[in-house]
Amino acid sequence: MTEAAIPCLATLALGARVRGHLLVVEVERRRMGSRDATLLTLANGSGRLPSAPLWGEAGNRVTGLTPGNVVEVSGRVGTYRGRRQLEIETIRTAPKELVDPRTLLPALANAESCWSALDRWRAGIRSSGLARVTGLFYDDPAFRRLYEECPASPSGHHAALGGLLQHTFEVASIGRAIAAVAGADRDLVLAGALLHDIGKLDAYTWSGPFEVSQAGALLGHVALGARTLDRRVREVADPVCSAPELDLLLHLVLSHHGRLEFGAAVEPMTLEADILHYADDASAKSASMAEALRNPANFTGSARLSSRIWQLDRRRVYRGGGEFSADEAMPLKAEQPPSRG
Amino acid sequence: MTEAAIPCLATLALGARVRGHLLVVEVERRRMGSRDATLLTLANGSGRLPSAPLWGEAGNRVTGLTPGNVVEVSGRVGTYRGRRQLEIETIRTAPKELVDPRTLLPALANAESCWSALDRWRAGIRSSGLARVTGLFYDDPAFRRLYEECPASPSGHHAALGGLLQHTFEVASIGRAIAAVAGADRDLVLAGALLHDIGKLDAYTWSGPFEVSQAGALLGHVALGARTLDRRVREVADPVCSAPELDLLLHLVLSHHGRLEFGAAVEPMTLEADILHYADDASAKSASMAEALRNPANFTGSARLSSRIWQLDRRRVYRGGGEFSADEAMPLKAEQPPSRG
Amino acid sequence: MTEAAIPCLATLALGARVRGHLLVVEVERRRMGSRDATLLTLANGSGRLPSAPLWGEAGNRVTGLTPGNVVEVSGRVGTYRGRRQLEIETIRTAPKELVDPRTLLPALANAESCWSALDRWRAGIRSSGLARVTGLFYDDPAFRRLYEECPASPSGHHAALGGLLQHTFEVASIGRAIAAVAGADRDLVLAGALLHDIGKLDAYTWSGPFEVSQAGALLGHVALGARTLDRRVREVADPVCSAPELDLLLHLVLSHHGRLEFGAAVEPMTLEADILHYADDASAKSASMAEALRNPANFTGSARLSSRIWQLDRRRVYRGGGEFSADEAMPLKAEQPPSRG
Amino acid sequence: MTEAAIPCLATLALGARVRGHLLVVEVERRRMGSRDATLLTLANGSGRLPSAPLWGEAGNRVTGLTPGNVVEVSGRVGTYRGRRQLEIETIRTAPKELVDPRTLLPALANAESCWSALDRWRAGIRSSGLARVTGLFYDDPAFRRLYEECPASPSGHHAALGGLLQHTFEVASIGRAIAAVAGADRDLVLAGALLHDIGKLDAYTWSGPFEVSQAGALLGHVALGARTLDRRVREVADPVCSAPELDLLLHLVLSHHGRLEFGAAVEPMTLEADILHYADDASAKSASMAEALRNPANFTGSARLSSRIWQLDRRRVYRGGGEFSADEAMPLKAEQPPSRG
Amino acid sequence: MTEAAIPCLATLALGARVRGHLLVVEVERRRMGSRDATLLTLANGSGRLPSAPLWGEAGNRVTGLTPGNVVEVSGRVGTYRGRRQLEIETIRTAPKELVDPRTLLPALANAESCWSALDRWRAGIRSSGLARVTGLFYDDPAFRRLYEECPASPSGHHAALGGLLQHTFEVASIGRAIAAVAGADRDLVLAGALLHDIGKLDAYTWSGPFEVSQAGALLGHVALGARTLDRRVREVADPVCSAPELDLLLHLVLSHHGRLEFGAAVEPMTLEADILHYADDASAKSASMAEALRNPANFTGSARLSSRIWQLDRRRVYRGGGEFSADEAMPLKAEQPPSRG
Amino acid sequence: MTEAAIPCLATLALGARVRGHLLVVEVERRRMGSRDATLLTLANGSGRLPSAPLWGEAGNRVTGLTPGNVVEVSGRVGTYRGRRQLEIETIRTAPKELVDPRTLLPALANAESCWSALDRWRAGIRSSGLARVTGLFYDDPAFRRLYEECPASPSGHHAALGGLLQHTFEVASIGRAIAAVAGADRDLVLAGALLHDIGKLDAYTWSGPFEVSQAGALLGHVALGARTLDRRVREVADPVCSAPELDLLLHLVLSHHGRLEFGAAVEPMTLEADILHYADDASAKSASMAEALRNPANFTGSARLSSRIWQLDRRRVYRGGGEFSADEAMPLKAEQPPSRG
Repeated sequence: MTEAAIPCLATLALGARVRGHLLVVEVERRRMGSRDATLLTLANGSGRLPSAPLWGEAGNRVTGLTPGNVVEVSGRVGTYRGRRQLEIETIRTAPKELVDPRTLLPALANAESCWSALDRWRAGIRSSGLARVTGLFYDDPAFRRLYEECPASPSGHHAALGGLLQHTFEVASIGRAIAAVAGADRDLVLAGALLHDIGKLDAYTWSGPFEVSQAGALLGHVALGARTLDRRVREVADPVCSAPELDLLLHLVLSHHGRLEFGAAVEPMTLEADILHYADDASAKSASMAEALRNPANFTGSARLSSRIWQLDRRRVYRGGGEFSADEAMPLKAEQPPSRG
Repeated sequence: MTEAAIPCLATLALGARVRGHLLVVEVERRRMGSRDATLLTLANGSGRLPSAPLWGEAGNRVTGLTPGNVVEVSGRVGTYRGRRQLEIETIRTAPKELVDPRTLLPALANAESCWSALDRWRAGIRSSGLARVTGLFYDDPAFRRLYEECPASPSGHHAALGGLLQHTFEVASIGRAIAAVAGADRDLVLAGALLHDIGKLDAYTWSGPFEVSQAGALLGHVALGARTLDRRVREVADPVCSAPELDLLLHLVLSHHGRLEFGAAVEPMTLEADILHYADDASAKSASMAEALRNPANFTGSARLSSRIWQLDRRRVYRGGGEFSADEAMPLKAEQPPSRG
Repeated sequence: MTEAAIPCLATLALGARVRGHLLVVEVERRRMGSRDATLLTLANGSGRLPSAPLWGEAGNRVTGLTPGNVVEVSGRVGTYRGRRQLEIETIRTAPKELVDPRTLLPALANAESCWSALDRWRAGIRSSGLARVTGLFYDDPAFRRLYEECPASPSGHHAALGGLLQHTFEVASIGRAIAAVAGADRDLVLAGALLHDIGKLDAYTWSGPFEVSQAGALLGHVALGARTLDRRVREVADPVCSAPELDLLLHLVLSHHGRLEFGAAVEPMTLEADILHYADDASAKSASMAEALRNPANFTGSARLSSRIWQLDRRRVYRGGGEFSADEAMPLKAEQPPSRG
Repeated sequence: MTEAAIPCLATLALGARVRGHLLVVEVERRRMGSRDATLLTLANGSGRLPSAPLWGEAGNRVTGLTPGNVVEVSGRVGTYRGRRQLEIETIRTAPKELVDPRTLLPALANAESCWSALDRWRAGIRSSGLARVTGLFYDDPAFRRLYEECPASPSGHHAALGGLLQHTFEVASIGRAIAAVAGADRDLVLAGALLHDIGKLDAYTWSGPFEVSQAGALLGHVALGARTLDRRVREVADPVCSAPELDLLLHLVLSHHGRLEFGAAVEPMTLEADILHYADDASAKSASMAEALRNPANFTGSARLSSRIWQLDRRRVYRGGGEFSADEAMPLKAEQPPSRG
Repeated sequence: MTEAAIPCLATLALGARVRGHLLVVEVERRRMGSRDATLLTLANGSGRLPSAPLWGEAGNRVTGLTPGNVVEVSGRVGTYRGRRQLEIETIRTAPKELVDPRTLLPALANAESCWSALDRWRAGIRSSGLARVTGLFYDDPAFRRLYEECPASPSGHHAALGGLLQHTFEVASIGRAIAAVAGADRDLVLAGALLHDIGKLDAYTWSGPFEVSQAGALLGHVALGARTLDRRVREVADPVCSAPELDLLLHLVLSHHGRLEFGAAVEPMTLEADILHYADDASAKSASMAEALRNPANFTGSARLSSRIWQLDRRRVYRGGGEFSADEAMPLKAEQPPSRG
Repeated sequence: MTEAAIPCLATLALGARVRGHLLVVEVERRRMGSRDATLLTLANGSGRLPSAPLWGEAGNRVTGLTPGNVVEVSGRVGTYRGRRQLEIETIRTAPKELVDPRTLLPALANAESCWSALDRWRAGIRSSGLARVTGLFYDDPAFRRLYEECPASPSGHHAALGGLLQHTFEVASIGRAIAAVAGADRDLVLAGALLHDIGKLDAYTWSGPFEVSQAGALLGHVALGARTLDRRVREVADPVCSAPELDLLLHLVLSHHGRLEFGAAVEPMTLEADILHYADDASAKSASMAEALRNPANFTGSARLSSRIWQLDRRRVYRGGGEFSADEAMPLKAEQPPSRG
């Protein structure tokens, strides 16, 4: 039995049967009426579902669970106050060595094509200094292993395993397009895309539910990224770049949020830093918009106008019905870059 | 004698001789001490220069000039209070039929390659409805003639003859790159790029110095663009699209400034409208940044740090010295898109 | 039996009996404990009330209802968790041809006096061009029929059938007063008042619960109003005004929200556009304030200080106790304009 | 010789002769080349004009002048650097007892009709308490004498002798119109209009050029107005109103700027305070707009579009050409309220 | 039995017994299922706790209670939906003359040391005028009695009996430190600290749960403070200071919120007013931060990172674990000022 | 001859003789009329003064000067257009080895007393970890040498040699006072004060006129300070603190501007970081206010109300006349901390 048996927690119909592994995301103990009950929130890569209350013996049995545990569950989808819930029939802890919790977190599956594009672009970098600095990270297998897992945010845009890599690919791709028309140094924009979010490796944790780490909260991923770059460059015996060159790269990292009030430590002062910011913004915000349009919870039934969406500054969105759909199916071209769609 | 004889008004050295046609941009009459003087501001495509005061007979002779006139001038570059000025020796009005004032305005020379890219992309549009609506404008020679002249703004980004076409190309190019990674409808984004600024044809005048027209001031180019699109679609006998389709395109035009406070009539509600806004913003703002970096007036001597620049929200900018320049010259690839550089 | 039997849903006392027609505004199906229940929200012109849960057979019988249906109900006002609810005893669908849903929506009853004032003022317009343009709408019976029904907003100020007409009267009345002291063109202000919100006819729907239409969401009532005016003026064979005159009227419509961040497409550039904005603002915001003061839900018991009110930018309000009440009753004068009070 | 001999300083043509009394507004001493010169700025009710430099003996003779002095001048309008200046031929100090400096300040001439409207409205107040409190000021001849002189601001809206009275009339007039449609207590709104700016009597000085007083700077006219009302009410032996009534009136004064960031000490909490704010705003801002439209310095030649105007938040304005002018002259009706026009 | 028997309502463990006097803070009557229940919120100086529902006879018995009553209670701490509640066994009204409600409100116990520091500093004032004005209040036993009870806010910083006195001490202490390094008049800063919040005596009520009074809502504590100072100074026969001196003190009171948008009637114009604002801000905001760090409700379990905290502008806070704790215990020095800790 | 002979450039009277060393701050070459002239701006610690134009031979002789040179000058104070200027009689370059340019920059003279207070407070630090980290800098003579010279800003608050040390002392002094009343860890606040601005050593240059360095512009002093601290701590062989401790100190540095829009990389999350921000703000802003009050250029003559001051957010300030001056002179106490006054 695998989690493949639970196709999509977010859309399972009322009454559907559920069998397989799920990640424990929350454990709550409540007194309901005169009895104590335990409520779990369970998740897999497709979404999350609260359990119906577990009473008495059943409740006691799950009391020891903590967020991050994996359980093997069978049950049925029920409803309470209009919200779907999982009516658990059997539940037991899955041995840690059998199931990796990360298989139960939301994940983006494009790693290969993202790496392939990024590495191809890196290979075209014309300055050996830039190639060396980005190589300190992107030629390091340990870095790649972490980087292709890390989410781009705990609960915002690209909040999935692999989200940071997908976002990095998008920023690089958009940034190159802007650099091309703006007459900017496209290699410097690429280097900025590759380095701008490396601080997120220290700022987030993703072995269980995605969280901000203590260092992430106290320093922020922007300053953490600058620190990681500074430390890594200084660690290597042979200098990979000069001090002013390092400052220029640190400027890209520190300014990529564009404005102080959005979290930039300084505002962009070079054309490439400006472009990096626009590319970062376009990737992150268009991902949030696309997700808002996909999320059925934002719409009543088949309505095309959503309710107001907090994450989009309280905008409402409109999901079209293919007003201008293609007149006939056209195959995607081979050179099509990997879309997050 | 042609204006080619005046290579670049903005950088002519002290003492250089000037001979050729110039555009009259301002005419001012002043009493200086006990005498009346006339001061002209003259321009060609490379910049502008004030004249030294013209006294007595000479002053009287130029009194009838108005902004938009073309004059044939000979003189020498002098200086007054540290500012360069043109010491006019001879000046006479050029016959209107001999010199088109537009040859003396700043211009971008990429029209052909911009048209070529835009037309190639239009040819790939998969919805016949979208192709018909954009064709109403882009297959109309009269529209093309105006569109390839119009500046993208009177004194902001792409403020040159042909600036609007260059900007349109950039928005389409960047918008396609964002659409590709965001899984958006790339044809709708392209249509948005093609239509978003058509209101500028009515909002600006460019037969002489660039100005905002009366309609441009009272209605703004955003609402003017929506009006132009609405009128044009309703003019044609056979409907080119349905009413909801028209609304979707009008939404792209009306929302392309992104937020109400930046002049959007409504905020973007579709993924494609959002992407159009990011592409428009990236093109416009990176152009302003690039221009600020190129403008020697923003820097003292060879300083790399500029003074505070009003047009960039009072940011200072940094012009690098090729910190990470290419290790060897690499030819631009043939498929390189036309850069404004 | 008529809805007159249900005097005011918002203030009916606990235990009061209810008999008559009500509008279905929401239908929710919930699992409560181990049973499924249906909850309705019912409304008439005086307010809305949730039903107690309907179980089993009763619940099934109302499952087919949708918002916009009219039902004939008998029951009693009960309470649950401190909130009043309608304990339904009998309920059945009312035949569509018997009851117009609009009789069950909140309505303002001043149409006649509003029309009378507006038509009298229109008759005094001194420019035949202005008279013709406003007449295109206000002499058209179909326009008048729609206009006197439309709410001024779905859930904000004057959110009632007839609210738009009442608001239009108020804007005209206040605008004339400002124009008088400011030496402005009072006819142009009047025309602005008459035309500024005509886009709301397309932006809202009011055959059932008030909603924003698809066009209303995508284009906004400001741009829709400009489009309606532009189309109507161009439809008539004999031109009713010149192009610059039309631009001036479009400017009034497009700028009436005063500032970009409040939804104006352009900011007011004429004295009359400025005055129209102040009058619109004073009518809309004083209506919201008056309603907040009338709404008992904003106050605890007989307290004079309200809780913080979201719609008034989180202000608290104070309802006085006639501190300076009139020393003796004075009859309202005959020429008193129609108040919304 | 009287100041009537100088019709309008702001529009006198080049070469026009000037004879009469003028107010000294500024005195500046400068070294020009190798000589010392004195420059005066002179004004009368119609505007202000700088003098040409006065040299040697002439300069010495005017050295003792200070702002607020009145001089008798003859001369001619000349020009320097495109700006008009007064070329003084004779100048001598006018005896203080002969010319009141106030006759040389800008003034609004509507006092009588403003008083008449305000007093008529006051007579209609239905609460004896309100009548008594407003009467403490408006039945006091000393108050009336000061109040009809005071400007409404030193250099903003209604910046003229009598400006405060004109503004008060406008606020009352607009406020009554809003109160009528909003179902508010029109007497309380009237009382608010009458009292809201009484602090300006202490906040400004107008015996010479208009200035903010020391108390005006340190306390602001809002808090000063509250203090004046509080002190006056407590001075009279028989109480004119109760403590809660006084608080309600103080609330009107303290909140009339509407929002904290605009200088309100508290934000409006009653319908009448809200209306007072809208009326105050409409009077002040429409006056600024009207003045910007009248001021030729905002326009180049006969252009209809102005330059950006600092006082209007950098908006540009449009001065129309009677697009919709009346088809025939219509006499103003007798009951027309006094316009500032 | 006294309230000392209930050590800390906020942290009592599940199952703990409760006996003693509590203050009734809220009374709510709800229909739960088919029965009516009454729910109380009870408090003492250490926090507040909701009761379990009281049914039938028990519910009827407590129906007459109103906020501000004191009751004698016995019961046990239970839980419902994860929230602790008080399961009441016996409850009866305590005679008003036996228990002062104020003994059951949160209180700060530093009054003596605050008075002692403030009086010592007052004794050092070098200007007799300043000493006289502050003495009008601080030498008045009635003022001191009220002042040492008043909270500094109803539910924000120092929201406890005695909070205003503690805050005043803090502002004076911090203000003196800033004045010392800034070369400011330390006595004027002290006078500002002593007078800046005297308006709170009229703006709040604290005989029961802390509330904003009617005058406090309508006028605000800033304008009320200015009024109190103005009235008190004018009441005394012998003038204690000159009019300009009074204005300077009123300026301190009116400007102490620093900026208009934070509620200042005017912005600080003197060095001492500026310093008073910084000291006020530092005292108030560091108190809110300290309280947020102490409040276990902001943290999940023993987590060091809090959830987002509304009162701190949605910041998250970090409670450290003595990272840099003292290497060895060091006794607090005798001259240590009284800390709110 | 020494610069002591030029007591105060800012206040020297017209006609006063000047002899001594001055720093060249600006060199400008202008064509005036038909001749070329050179204009210098010269400065010493007391202020700056422009020179009268130097013509012909004199002009040529000074053409080679650049900002940062020291010259020996004799001359007289003259005036031009109401502005004082230095009429140079003799001028020659001073040998670099004879005069240190820093003696001619504005300087604060409190270094000794600031060091003494800071070192005394450091000696009281109770945690050996904190003592070690701060000692890495404050026990290093090279650091102290630089730190006691560095200005706290190029042209804002404490813009003088030694300004950073004075500011650090003030922040520590104020921070300790806040920590004392807030129950915070006073040693951590002290460490924050000592470390918060160490990035300014790299962000500014002060060997001539104060400037922002390239690194200062690209990275900002906040991120530079974090980098310096991180590098220094990692350089030493024996760890001086743990990684979480370092994060806590970096948080103090990165958050000391308080809010993102004021340049904080993250917002304060601990009580000590909050207090550090308030202390930094109070020191910097009260210094700007004090300087604005001292600067005669902000006032016309002896006026007490200033013009609007850009650096204080366009506030006007009021300079009192000792309204509440001490009744008799009182000697400053010995333990008085060093004031910047």
